[in-house]
Parts: sequence; structure tokens; C-alpha cells
Amino acid sequence: MSLDELCATVGAADVVIDPARMAAYQFDWARVPGAGMPCAVVRPRTAAQVQAAVRWAASHGIPVVPRGAGTGLAGGASAIEGGLTISLEKMTAIKIDPATRTAVVEPGALNAAVKRAAAAEGLWYPPDPSSFEICSIGGNIATNAGGLCCVKYGVTTDYVLGLDVVLADGRLITLGGKRIKDVAGLSLMKLFVGSEGTLGIVTRVILRLLPEPPPASTLVAVFPTARAAAEAVVEMGRTIRASLVEFMDGRAINIVEDYTAMGLDRSAGGLLVIQSDAPGAACAQEMQRIEAVCLAVGCSEVYRTDDPQEGEAFLSARRAFFPASERLGSLLIEDVGVPVPTLPDLLDGISEIAARHDTDIPVVAHAGDGNTHPNLIFDGADPAARERAEAAFEEIMQLAIDLGGTITGEHGVGRAKIGALGAQLGPDVMEVTRAIKAALDPQGILNPGSGI
Amino acid sequence: MSLDELCATVGAADVVIDPARMAAYQFDWARVPGAGMPCAVVRPRTAAQVQAAVRWAASHGIPVVPRGAGTGLAGGASAIEGGLTISLEKMTAIKIDPATRTAVVEPGALNAAVKRAAAAEGLWYPPDPSSFEICSIGGNIATNAGGLCCVKYGVTTDYVLGLDVVLADGRLITLGGKRIKDVAGLSLMKLFVGSEGTLGIVTRVILRLLPEPPPASTLVAVFPTARAAAEAVVEMGRTIRASLVEFMDGRAINIVEDYTAMGLDRSAGGLLVIQSDAPGAACAQEMQRIEAVCLAVGCSEVYRTDDPQEGEAFLSARRAFFPASERLGSLLIEDVGVPVPTLPDLLDGISEIAARHDTDIPVVAHAGDGNTHPNLIFDGADPAARERAEAAFEEIMQLAIDLGGTITGEHGVGRAKIGALGAQLGPDVMEVTRAIKAALDPQGILNPGSGI
Ligand SMILES: Cc1cc2nc3c(=O)[nH]c(=O)nc-3n(C[C@H](O)[C@H](O)[C@H](O)COP(=O)(O)OP(=O)(O)OC[C@H]3O[C@@H](n4cnc5c(N)ncnc54)[C@H](O)[C@@H]3O)c2cc1C
Ligand SMILES: Cc1cc2nc3c(=O)[nH]c(=O)nc-3n(C[C@H](O)[C@H](O)[C@H](O)COP(=O)(O)OP(=O)(O)OC[C@H]3O[C@@H](n4cnc5c(N)ncnc54)[C@H](O)[C@@H]3O)c2cc1C
Repeated sequence: MSLDELCATVGAADVVIDPARMAAYQFDWARVPGAGMPCAVVRPRTAAQVQAAVRWAASHGIPVVPRGAGTGLAGGASAIEGGLTISLEKMTAIKIDPATRTAVVEPGALNAAVKRAAAAEGLWYPPDPSSFEICSIGGNIATNAGGLCCVKYGVTTDYVLGLDVVLADGRLITLGGKRIKDVAGLSLMKLFVGSEGTLGIVTRVILRLLPEPPPASTLVAVFPTARAAAEAVVEMGRTIRASLVEFMDGRAINIVEDYTAMGLDRSAGGLLVIQSDAPGAACAQEMQRIEAVCLAVGCSEVYRTDDPQEGEAFLSARRAFFPASERLGSLLIEDVGVPVPTLPDLLDGISEIAARHDTDIPVVAHAGDGNTHPNLIFDGADPAARERAEAAFEEIMQLAIDLGGTITGEHGVGRAKIGALGAQLGPDVMEVTRAIKAALDPQGILNPGSGI
Repeated sequence: MSLDELCATVGAADVVIDPARMAAYQFDWARVPGAGMPCAVVRPRTAAQVQAAVRWAASHGIPVVPRGAGTGLAGGASAIEGGLTISLEKMTAIKIDPATRTAVVEPGALNAAVKRAAAAEGLWYPPDPSSFEICSIGGNIATNAGGLCCVKYGVTTDYVLGLDVVLADGRLITLGGKRIKDVAGLSLMKLFVGSEGTLGIVTRVILRLLPEPPPASTLVAVFPTARAAAEAVVEMGRTIRASLVEFMDGRAINIVEDYTAMGLDRSAGGLLVIQSDAPGAACAQEMQRIEAVCLAVGCSEVYRTDDPQEGEAFLSARRAFFPASERLGSLLIEDVGVPVPTLPDLLDGISEIAARHDTDIPVVAHAGDGNTHPNLIFDGADPAARERAEAAFEEIMQLAIDLGGTITGEHGVGRAKIGALGAQLGPDVMEVTRAIKAALDPQGILNPGSGI
């Protein structure tokens, strides 16, 4: 192995080998323990440089970690000791094609930048992870990121029309294109979406855009219990297509209110922020139906606004939860999803687990999809507290599986949940997974120990 | 190889070996030449029987052809001489779960039956291939079927939440479930969708349902030329989300009018049937914008109706095209798709190819998606005419590729287009495809010679 060789093939200007600078590439937001120091961090500007770097790594059997903006919550972009991290941060070009309603995007472009470029042409890129201001499209593709509007508009995979992918042997393949429908051959494109950097490195994406949606109305409903809020979500789900259904439990409300006083009701057991973007008069009708459902399951207060800015202010309470909870201690961020009707039972189960393991577990959720984020907060300096939190973390995943759900609704498996994947998928699906991995990456150099 | 053994393991009552009865399983609607006589047709009632049949075939190295309702237009369900055809026609159970807004469906259930069962609960299964009354859900999954409403509501893959699949070695795996979001592990489910029976046999499907959409308004616009109609589609696509955008060229109009007099304008060069299902007053607004676009590019006549039955009558003209053209001779059904802005050029190119090869090629299209169906009609008894049609067929595929499109937008590759797949995908993607096929079906027994 020769770093000189790497510098020669990629171009020394785009290779970082200084450990002090490389430290910034060791973790993602999950800070999963065990991250190593890479042998080098390559920051390519072109797909050809990605290919060169991968070929170099392949020829030396060195593991490769693809990295976007490092906002991942599963440790998927954590560095491997002695491995090569390829950070796509410099590949940020965005080209909007209004005629085909598509965006051709390099992987390092931030989600928010794509949204802005589309909006400048009167178009809309729907997927909106809460991290949209700071996460990259490449990371979104690799995790099949969800978000707030996906309850109505779907997740990342629903907007991918084309991908360029550098394979484990350095070859670059192009999948799909600016055509909307295409069933020629296997759905390889969909296979690469959500593969968490284990099958290839995405170097270019063609995204489908929509015309801008009508402005949304927002409703905030306060419930005496978390369960009642969840029941409203279940009831709504039967007949109403809201464009956003976010949930916070009582503990989460208080954590946010401690962080910035927003006037939230500290005595509430649960809070829903719901939006409808039905056009014209249909919006008010939908809002009325939503309000009726909330009142029927016993919501204690409901407030509606058509003012987009005021609506955004309510959402900012939900968005503030992550920074607010981060200050309180070490975090283990769960991401379990369940069939919507089991949401009340999941919430009850989580609070039982929290009590039994004496761990603080506020819950926020993309509730309309049954996708929850229980955040386990504990004193990282106290080994017993960590042990209790870790035990609770495992039990919540098992609870989700028992309810017909999944250990991860949107953050991915990464390094944080790799131990639980077998329980989720079962031995036969694991074997199929490994067979496909072996077919595409026989040396196993792409993000080993993560994702699958 | 012993058919007795097959009968013993599957149950003789569900095995057909009488050649006269098996003849009904030799072709699909494409009638691609070269179909053989199977050694047996198994018609399982349970997934366990599918497993038993596949295990029997695997142990003898006998090729297996999965078959739904046989409405395929690419020869994908054509029998292989001496192979085993597994027809899912008897597995037709449908169970609607309104709480999760899902349908649990056996593969032989017809698309229309799923729609009806959902409607009985006030729910809606959107995917609507023109063949929806006669095609099976299993076939829809295997081809990732599109349809009329997919311009707004997406194709089959967008509605699949779970799959049971029998693999080439007879193991049954379960993927996904009633949860809406799930990113645990690779997107294997999406890989099986559209795999045309080459990776596994689907024995159970969990489909996502939506609340019923508002009633649609319908607009019919008549254009002097096909190109002008296509230009209207391009212009509309920039800003409007119509729920249906269907096209017929002048020749197709006349073929339908010959078949059943519907009062269509025989002098028209192109006709569009467009629907909007925007709720309430927004619908009329959308219709006005659509009408304005049509008039701006020179449409000669436009007619609007809010009456769903009258709207359906206009659509029935479009739907009548297939039976109407079938009477006229032998058919080669194209299914090429292109980026929407190139639709006018594709239509011009097709008419040039038709003239040069002296072949009748009426065109209908799911125009909003750029997905066209040029139907090549020729005298099957005249070898020269067949040769000309086949040459035109190849040229149309190449034209689509040259325009950045695909050789198949929704019917699949099957046996009809397998020769062109390499030109579409290129050698590297073909190699990845073969690697995945080999990983999942090392013996190559699942639908060999078709799809990939
Ligand atoms: C405050 C906060 C809120 C969040 N909210 C949401 C949310 O609502 N929904 C949601 O889905 N996620 C959410 N996330 C998680 C995270 O933002 C997403 O997973 C995001 O998609 C990661 O993008 P990234 O660019 O930061 O990727 P990284 O963290 O750098 O990498 C993520 C994974 O993708 C791989 N990868 C990155 N780029 C590529 C590439 N070009 N090719 C191949 N593999 C690649 C990496 O190897 C890694 O496995 C949130 C995170 C934070 C910090
Ligand atoms: C008049 C007419 C109009 C049509 N319009 C459309 C349209 O608008 N959009 C569209 O997409 N298609 C259309 N088609 C084509 C056809 O109806 C679709 O491809 C449909 O999905 C095929 O379903 P099937 O049950 O008939 O499948 P089959 O023809 O029996 O099989 C199709 C393929 O799927 C495989 N297969 C079937 N069942 C299974 C299973 N359970 N597991 C694994 N593999 C399986 C077969 O091996 C074969 O490769 C049309 C066809 C006709 C005749």
C-alpha cells in the first residue's frame, strides 16, 4: 500500500493524510463508538477521481467508506481504522432541467440546495429529512432518506430516475435516465438506493421534480396522553391524505420548551403538528376533517393557521427537538417504524421500557408513517446508565419487530444496528443479501461492517 | 425426471400434463414465435405447492416459467419446450386491511378484483394497466406494470409494501410488511419487482392503498398533427399534474372508428384525453390551464366534461385500440418510452420509419410519461411484410435509445426484446445483471431466455 500511489492517481491536492484534518471525518452524528483513523481521506471533484481512488483501494484490499455530509444517525459514514474515506463534499453541481422536470445533481450537493435550485424554476424536490439543510443528496440516496412530507409524497427512492455508480472494482455504470418509465432489465437503480454505501458509490443522480405544491395549512393539536395523539393518527390514516403528520410526546415537549420557550403546553401528553396542502377550498375541508378526528379522540386544544410562516414556527418546535436533547447527555437515537395502527402500543411499550430501564426516552415521530424516533438520553460517564440505555435500545428494536415493524424506518442500519439486522430479516433474507453483496463486491471492500 | 414425482410432491389434482390443455399455456398476448410445449403445468393453490414444484424442477435442472394471467405483451410467460410452467391463476385470495390501508393479495388475483375489493372499503389501488380487467397482480409485480393514472400516481413498485417470494432453490422469503417506511437491509423487494420471473416467484403481495381520489374531469382535445398534440403534452408537463394524459395518432383514431363508430374526428392528426382529479374548485382551474395549453399549440377542438361516465366513454375509445388493431393483421407491439420533451421527435421518427419500411404503425401512448405504444400491423402470411415490420421494430427501439429513452416503458423485455437489452443497458450493466442473476439463481432455471 502506498499513499504516494494514491496521491499520484487521484491528484495530491484532493487527498488528505494529515490526522488532525482527518479527525473531522471519523464520525457521523451518531458518534457510534469504535471509529478508526483512516489511512487517507479523498475528496474527489470528479467521478474519474472516485474511480481512481476505488481502484487503488481495491488493488490493495483496503476498505472504502463513502461519506456525504456526515449527518447520518447510524454510524454508516464512520471511518475504519486504516481504511479509505471518500468524501463527496466537493461534488456539488446542480443542474435543473425544467423541460423534463428533473435535476441532475452531484452527490455532495445538499438537499436544501437542490430544493432551492428547483424552486428557482418553480419546481419542487419533495424529500425533506429534518436535516435537509445539512445533509447531502448522495447520503439521502444511500439511506433512502425519508422526512416530513413523505407521508403524502414518498421517500427518496420515489424521486430517483437515474444514478451513476462507481462499483467496487472502479467501473462506473449509468442506470436510468430522464425518462419517467423504464422497465428494461432488473431494477438495479432501486437496489442501489438505500444500500448505505455497501454496493457502490453514487457520483451523479437524476432526480424527478414536481410542480410546486399549493401552500399548506397547519393544525396543532394537544392531547392529554401520547396514546390519544397516536389514536388520532391511526384514525386519520384511514381516510385522509395529510401532507405532514408529526408527533412529540410530553417529555419531548418539555425538552424543547426548556431549550427555547415557545409557549408549548408542558402538561400535554402528546402533540401533533399536521399539514394539508390540498388545493383551494379542499384544504379547509381536509383541515376540518382532521380537527374533527382530533376532537373525537379527546384532544384538549386545537389551533389552525393558513399562514405558512406561522405553520413553519410550529414545525420548528418539532425540529428543535434534536439540538435540544443533544445538550442533555449522551444519546442513542432510535428510528423504529411500525404499521400505523400499532403506534399506540409502540408508544406504551416504549414508556414501559423507559421506566423499567430507568432511562429518559422522549419520543418524536413522523407519525403518519408509523416512523418514530425514541431518543435515549443518558449520562455517558456512568457505565451503568449506558448499559441500561443500551438494553432499552435493544428492547425497543425487538418491540418494533414484534409489532410487525422495522428496526429502522429511515436512518439506516449503519454500524449502530448491524447486530439487530439478522433478527429483522431472518437467516434466508440475510443469505440473499450476502449473495448480492458478494456478486457486486466480492472483495468486500465497500463499507464493511456497516449497513448489511 | 419423473412427472410422477412432480404429481406426488405437488398433488396430482393441480398438475396438468395433457398437451391439449397445456396448449392454453403456451403463449401470452404477444404470441412471440418459438414457444414450446411444457412438460407440465402446475396450478398451485398454496405457496408450499409452488415451493414443491420449484424444488422438483431444480433437482432435475428443468427450466421454470412463472405465469400469471398471460396478458403479457413481451412473451415473458411463453412456455419453454420441456419446461415447467407454474400458473398462479388459482391463488386469488384478497384481504383488505382498512386500518393499515393495505391489501394482502395472492398473485393470481386480477388487478380489477383488487380494485373492487379496495373500493368496497372506500379505498383505492391506483395502478391501472389498460389490461386491468384481465391481468394478475403477480404479473403486474413481475413487470412493474404501469397504466393510465401513473403519470400522477406512479407505477406498481410504488405500491408494494411486502412480498413473499419463492427462490430458485425453493426457499420462501418474506420481504417488507405492513409498515410504510423500512430501510433495514438492501431494497430486495424493489429488486424483485420488475424482475419478470427471473429471480423468484411471487406468492403473496402486500399492497399500499390510498383513500379514493375525487372524481375526475375529462378533456378531449383534437389536433391537426400528432406533433402538435405531443407539444401540448410537453408544455403541460412543465407545470400541471394531470391524473391522466393519453394520446392517439390519426391512424389509431381511424382504426378505432372503423371498429366502433364513436364519432371521432377522422381528419385529426392527434387526439389527447386528459383528466384532472384535483379536488373541488381546483379541478376546474386545472382543466382551464390544460385547455389553454392545448389551444396555444393549435388544437382545433376541445371538449370538457365533469360527468365521470362520459369521461369513461372517451377513454373507452383509447382502450378499444388494442382489440381494434388486432383484427387487422399480425401485430408487433412496441412500448418505447422517452423523456417527455422528445416525444414530438419520437413520433416524427416513428412515422418516418413506418413510411420507409412500408408498415402500418398507428401510435397510442401514455403520453404524460413519454411512454408510447407504436403497434406494427402487417400481413403475417407475407414473409417480406414481416421482415419489414421486424426491421421497423428494431429501428424504433434504437430511436428511443438515441433519444435518451428505453426499449420498454412498461411491458417488459420478455422474449420479444431480449436481443435489444444489451444495446439499452451496455456491457457493464449487463454484467452486473448477470452477476445478480447468478447469485440468486445459479442454475439459471427461472425463466431462461426471457427478461434479462
Ligand atoms: C438533526 C438531524 C435530523 C435528521 N432527520 C432525518 C429525517 O427526517 N429523515 C431521514 O431519513 N434522516 C434524517 N437524519 C439522518 C441523516 O441526515 C440522513 O441519513 C441523510 O440521508 C444522511 O446524509 P449525509 O449526506 O449526511 O450522509 P452521511 O452521513 O455522510 O452518510 C450516510 C450513509 O450514506 C453513505 N453515503 C453517503 N454518500 C454516499 C454516496 N455518494 N454514495 C454511496 N454511499 C454514500 C455513507 O457511507 C453512509 O452509510 C437526520 C439527521 C440529523 C443530524
Ligand atoms: C389489451 C392489453 C393492454 C395492456 N395495457 C398495459 C398497460 O397499460 N400497462 C402495462 O404495464 N401493461 C399492459 N399490458 C401488458 C400486461 O397486461 C402486463 O404486463 C401485466 O402486468 C401482465 O400480467 P399477467 O398476469 O397477464 O402476467 P403474464 O403475462 O402471465 O406474465 C408476465 C410476466 O410476469 C411473470 N410472472 C407472472 N406472474 C408471476 C409471479 N407470480 N411471480 C413471478 N413472475 C411472474 C411471467 O413470467 C412473465 O415474465 C396490456 C396487455 C394487454 C393485452
